[in-house]
Amino acid sequence: MEEDVCYCPIGKLHSPHKRPKGTPIQPSSAEGVEGQVEIFPNYRAGLEDLGGFSHVILIYHFHLAGESTLKVKPYMDDEDHGVFATRGPARPNPVGISNVRLKKIEEGILYLEDVDILDGTPVLDVKPHVVEFDQPDVTNIGWLGENVHRLEESEDDGRFAR
Amino acid sequence: MEEDVCYCPIGKLHSPHKRPKGTPIQPSSAEGVEGQVEIFPNYRAGLEDLGGFSHVILIYHFHLAGESTLKVKPYMDDEDHGVFATRGPARPNPVGISNVRLKKIEEGILYLEDVDILDGTPVLDVKPHVVEFDQPDVTNIGWLGENVHRLEESEDDGRFAR
Repeated sequence: MEEDVCYCPIGKLHSPHKRPKGTPIQPSSAEGVEGQVEIFPNYRAGLEDLGGFSHVILIYHFHLAGESTLKVKPYMDDEDHGVFATRGPARPNPVGISNVRLKKIEEGILYLEDVDILDGTPVLDVKPHVVEFDQPDVTNIGWLGENVHRLEESEDDGRFAR
Repeated sequence: MEEDVCYCPIGKLHSPHKRPKGTPIQPSSAEGVEGQVEIFPNYRAGLEDLGGFSHVILIYHFHLAGESTLKVKPYMDDEDHGVFATRGPARPNPVGISNVRLKKIEEGILYLEDVDILDGTPVLDVKPHVVEFDQPDVTNIGWLGENVHRLEESEDDGRFAR
């Protein structure tokens, strides 16, 4: 058996999205929505030089996700898919990632745009988004190929919340 | 105080990289390197329809990372930077992400290319990589702007290992 892996949040996210229902489902459908990550004081020295990056990758815990199932009906389709073929929050390990725009950092607060994340979300890690590392030459996006046009009209309807 | 967040690995990564020293530091410097994620039997039903995607995002635990410090000298520079402005593995929460090429899925095994991850790494989550979600219009990559050309010649020298 594998051992559990335990993490201690380094910060907390603040956003206008107070509950799952109505929250944008990706940064690209949350254009211009402002939010902040408050990095806890003990970790702030680790932010040095992050301000030079235009985008950061947030890794966070979907703290309001309900119990996971292995087959889910995602927001952007009417068919079931394996949970690992979706980005829904109710996953075996409810860990989320978002690529958001970094506007500035002041006194341990990251000021962000394109925030699709619930208020109060525990943040586990922040990494710089680097085109050379994070933007491979994707040739196929599976079931989303026929559905990605639905992104703009899709929002969280609460189906994965506890 | 924030509560700890605990996850149970859903699988294990197999790769030719048996120890930190000499391991490529990003998928883009591991082109063609093959590896597999063995998804544990209980989770395999969640893989349905993932095979249609050309790239997946692996989220995993840097199980051999040493103790973290808030200032680090990354592989690709000779200067110290805040740990959150780097992709080094010895982080407050040693959680890693890699965007790797998915060749096929058979009997719960993901066959991958461009694998920059150590053999035996516990895998926490697998998500489809979707251009519309994961490839924002990056305008700045901070200190890496002058250093990203060093990617090809950079490899892990063991500095962040326990």
